[in-house]
Amino acid sequence: MNFCSQCGRPVTLVVPADDDRPRHVCPDCGVIHYQNPKLVVGCIPVWDERILMCRRNIEPRKGYWTLPAGFLENGETVAAGARRETLEETGAVVTSLTPYLMVDIVHIGQIYLMFRSRLLAPQFHPTRESAEVKLLTEADIPWDDIAFKVIEKTLRHYLRDRPSGRFTFQADQIQVKPADK
Amino acid sequence: MNFCSQCGRPVTLVVPADDDRPRHVCPDCGVIHYQNPKLVVGCIPVWDERILMCRRNIEPRKGYWTLPAGFLENGETVAAGARRETLEETGAVVTSLTPYLMVDIVHIGQIYLMFRSRLLAPQFHPTRESAEVKLLTEADIPWDDIAFKVIEKTLRHYLRDRPSGRFTFQADQIQVKPADK
Repeated sequence: MNFCSQCGRPVTLVVPADDDRPRHVCPDCGVIHYQNPKLVVGCIPVWDERILMCRRNIEPRKGYWTLPAGFLENGETVAAGARRETLEETGAVVTSLTPYLMVDIVHIGQIYLMFRSRLLAPQFHPTRESAEVKLLTEADIPWDDIAFKVIEKTLRHYLRDRPSGRFTFQADQIQVKPADK
Repeated sequence: MNFCSQCGRPVTLVVPADDDRPRHVCPDCGVIHYQNPKLVVGCIPVWDERILMCRRNIEPRKGYWTLPAGFLENGETVAAGARRETLEETGAVVTSLTPYLMVDIVHIGQIYLMFRSRLLAPQFHPTRESAEVKLLTEADIPWDDIAFKVIEKTLRHYLRDRPSGRFTFQADQIQVKPADK
C-alpha cells in the first residue's frame, strides 16, 4: 500500500495512538488502513460414498485437483459463500452444509473454513474454473495431483473420520517450512 | 474507496473479466481491489463455574459488558488472535482454546469466531480497553447491559450447553431487522 484509498495522498507506516503495530495511515485525512486475513470457504460435496472434485482450469495450480473453495464475499454468510463457490466451480447444488474443518495458513494470511455437504442431485459439469468435475471414490483420489496442501488435509481429515461417522469440528494449520518461505 | 492504494490514481467500479460483481479497479495500473469480510476472534474465558467479562472503556458501546474479542491480525492463527485479544482486554492468560461458535453478521461484513477457554490462573485486571474485568456467575451476568448481540448469543449458547457438558461447534447468524438498517 502506497497511497490513501480515501484521498489519494501517500500513506506512511506508523503505529497509531493506542495501537501496538504499524499500520498504513494517511497523514492527510487521518484514515488508518487496516489489513487483515481473508476467509476462504469451501465444501466437501458428497454423493453416496463419493466426493466431488474438480481439476483446476485456472492458475494457480492449473491442471491439479481440488475441492470447491474461494474467498468469502461481502454480503454473504460463510455457508452461502461455500454454496456459491461450489456452484461456480462445479455446477452442483449442495445442501446440509455443516462446518467441519478450519485451517490457519498464516504465511499467506488465509483461513480456510471447509463444510461437509451433500449434493442435491448428481448433477455437475465442467466450468470456466474447472476443466473436469468428477465424483471420486476414496481409491480414485489423485493424491499426487492435489492442488493445495489444505485440500489434501481436508480430504484426509474427512476420510479418517468417515468410518466412525463422527465428524467433530476441527482446527488445523499449515505451516511454511523454512525452505518454502 | 476512491483512489488506487498502489499507484494513487482514481479507481473505477467495474465488473472485471471473468468476475460476476463490481470491484474497485485501477484503470491505470490494473490492480483489482477486492474487499472481503473480516474475522473477529474471541474467547469465553472460564475459571471454576465463572465467566470472565469486561466492561468496555472504549467506543462503541462504552460502559457495556462484553467478552474479549477483536479483529484477527495478519501473522497470527485464529487461536493466537483470540488469546491476544483476551490478554489485551483483560490482562488474563487463557489456555485450552476450543472453537465453539461462529456467527455471521453479514450486514457489517464480520464473522465472529468464539472459542471456549480456561484461565491459566484467576489473574486479570482493568486495561485501557476495559474499565472493569470480573469473573461472573450465571446469575451475575448483566443481560440488560451486554455490548453486542453476538456476545449475548455466545453466552446463551454456552450456558445452554453447559449443564450437559456437550459443547458441539455451532454456526449462527445475526440478521438486521429492517428498522435497524
